[in-house]
Amino acid sequence: MILQNLQKFRKISATKDGVTRLGLTDWEDKAHAAAATVFSRHRRVRRVRDQAGNTFLINGDGKGPYIVMGSHLDTVPNGGWLDGALGVAGALDAMMRVIRKSRNAPVAVAIWADEEGYRFGNGLWGSRAFAGQVSQEELLGLRDAEGTTLADLLAERGLQSKPRRSRETGELQVKFVYKPPIELGAYAEAHIEQGSRLIEAGKRVGLVTHVAGLRRWRLESMGETNHAGTTPMRERRDALVPIAGMVGRLPQLVRGVEDAVVTCGVIGVRPGVANVIPDRAWAVIEHRAPSARDQEEIARRLKELVATTGPRAPGVGLEMQPILAVPPTPLSEEVTAGLEEVCRKAGVESMRMVSMAGHDAMVIARVAPAGLFFIPSLKGVSHRPDEDSRKEDIKLAAEILYRWALAQLDRVL
Amino acid sequence: MILQNLQKFRKISATKDGVTRLGLTDWEDKAHAAAATVFSRHRRVRRVRDQAGNTFLINGDGKGPYIVMGSHLDTVPNGGWLDGALGVAGALDAMMRVIRKSRNAPVAVAIWADEEGYRFGNGLWGSRAFAGQVSQEELLGLRDAEGTTLADLLAERGLQSKPRRSRETGELQVKFVYKPPIELGAYAEAHIEQGSRLIEAGKRVGLVTHVAGLRRWRLESMGETNHAGTTPMRERRDALVPIAGMVGRLPQLVRGVEDAVVTCGVIGVRPGVANVIPDRAWAVIEHRAPSARDQEEIARRLKELVATTGPRAPGVGLEMQPILAVPPTPLSEEVTAGLEEVCRKAGVESMRMVSMAGHDAMVIARVAPAGLFFIPSLKGVSHRPDEDSRKEDIKLAAEILYRWALAQLDRVL
Repeated sequence: MILQNLQKFRKISATKDGVTRLGLTDWEDKAHAAAATVFSRHRRVRRVRDQAGNTFLINGDGKGPYIVMGSHLDTVPNGGWLDGALGVAGALDAMMRVIRKSRNAPVAVAIWADEEGYRFGNGLWGSRAFAGQVSQEELLGLRDAEGTTLADLLAERGLQSKPRRSRETGELQVKFVYKPPIELGAYAEAHIEQGSRLIEAGKRVGLVTHVAGLRRWRLESMGETNHAGTTPMRERRDALVPIAGMVGRLPQLVRGVEDAVVTCGVIGVRPGVANVIPDRAWAVIEHRAPSARDQEEIARRLKELVATTGPRAPGVGLEMQPILAVPPTPLSEEVTAGLEEVCRKAGVESMRMVSMAGHDAMVIARVAPAGLFFIPSLKGVSHRPDEDSRKEDIKLAAEILYRWALAQLDRVL
Repeated sequence: MILQNLQKFRKISATKDGVTRLGLTDWEDKAHAAAATVFSRHRRVRRVRDQAGNTFLINGDGKGPYIVMGSHLDTVPNGGWLDGALGVAGALDAMMRVIRKSRNAPVAVAIWADEEGYRFGNGLWGSRAFAGQVSQEELLGLRDAEGTTLADLLAERGLQSKPRRSRETGELQVKFVYKPPIELGAYAEAHIEQGSRLIEAGKRVGLVTHVAGLRRWRLESMGETNHAGTTPMRERRDALVPIAGMVGRLPQLVRGVEDAVVTCGVIGVRPGVANVIPDRAWAVIEHRAPSARDQEEIARRLKELVATTGPRAPGVGLEMQPILAVPPTPLSEEVTAGLEEVCRKAGVESMRMVSMAGHDAMVIARVAPAGLFFIPSLKGVSHRPDEDSRKEDIKLAAEILYRWALAQLDRVL
């Protein structure tokens, strides 16, 4: 059944080249509705849409702590068919089988809204709302390419009321109202690996013990604009040359630091004219590593790079501002051990590993016991149309979730 | 009178911070009209606007070769008050004095339209039209920020007829009609130096023997986009790191090459998202040097830089495409020697030099004997509100033009 459901989700896409189902759009809603139809004949399964746009499929009376499985159904533009969808389809399959065995089991599927955060550049929206991690700055400060705020979009989609101006201060305010639809006892999520470590190690399951830390910085330089022809080299205060020089040396920052990565995905220059020396340039740098100590070491090296670049660019001011710092996040050892036991009993080789990317389970782990496991990605790629996994591994994801949920019920009931 | 006219021009500006009179706008027209009023009481001086938007103020019957002086009245946004305007005000002053001495003298002022080329990124528009250097590609291919072509703008301003679709091929075509209003016997232009070599050398006049060559290249890289967290460093095909590394090393390309400069004013990246490894990056590089041999040497070093960077970025394709190549352009030795003689007789210290920036005189030199001289810029700056020159040097520019024109007339008459 998991493969059929995945094929069903795959067809719900705004593009033919890869899957495009952006978060908080009608495309995402359509996929949530398609997931709910799996239980259309099960009267004891209620469909609940919460105030963040998440969908819960809840078996039974809704009381007490629940065994929850899930993931997300939104994608990046031209994304893969398994990122997110695998975890949801696996959870649907597992829940169906659990109910067949135990019709009143406190089991539920959670489909988190807008995990990718493509439109506003935020990410993990639905799970963060559930975990109580939404701020006024995010709702009113973030804007999409057309200038719409997240708060406006939520009101437009009927999830929250509109932002209002305060009568006293005149400032725009929004009251974010959220009530979790269920009490979450334990959570497990299956995901396709977004790398090739499992393939390389010859293992079928990766048990994620924690998610790597992420730090993001903005490097900015201030020089002086001048004519690119008539200003001699020694009199220039060129803002771009030092920024570019640092970006060119980025790979050196993670040399010798295990499993660490560093990336510059954004670079810009002003005024951006071929015959004018730039007076301003900037770059956004992010680095990730499994340990907090390694993250600190990379940040130290980046600061050193800025400090040694400065004197080579006389008259140019260099700044390094932090814009995001997520510490390495551990997942529940209890859930991880439970998943490991399931693999052992099923005769499936697993390995413990670190996830270099954030996932909904990481957010949920802050408020409840939550675990995450990967199945192998054939090319090690992600967020691309050619993302794929072997059929037997896809089926294995559903099987592991089913066995894990059953084991949890045995403990609860 | 030159200072009064310069003050008059200075007030014709769209901004208070510096002078803003973009080419081919009503602001430029207004300045051309203000220049013409200088001769409003002189019945023998005709004002002619040609089909490119240039203004000529022509003394006498218009027959035979003319002694012409001039420059331009358009500016960059928030530009200086002397760039262009000095040469026009000096020419107006000189012509007035010549006519007083010899009322039928074949003398004229040329005010070239849109020298800066700010809107379409071209430059030297009016003088190039006069010299017959306008192409279909320029008229129909260049577009401003709003998508308007140069051909559309010329039609809108009543200078040329509208582009039409060919009945046979269906392609858009434009017929550029241009007839030079006078025969040009010799041309001289005064300009403020856009650097500080005169100040440093303690000279009051710089005689430009030729204009440096300019070559412009587009560096482009093609890699592979992937997740910035889950893709290990050794598996990346990051397009930005090699481009940034090359831009960071640009100053090395002109080391030891006298008077050469190299600049990157444009850099870009795709998709331009902080957590995505870029699959495409590009930079526009330009270099200038007085000699063709030096230009060739710098281009060779740039090619070598690309060739040595490639192997350090496995899996990333690097390309280097030429987008502009202007060879060093000599000005008329005859006119330069004439200006030199004027300086010598006036007891003013002059020096011969190379101009690193293009000027209208460079274009005119291709079709007639044309010369160019600089007066010192106080801070060596250009295209900025604080561009300035000493009053006595401004007056000197008009004096030199006057004496040069008189000497020419003596030879002609």
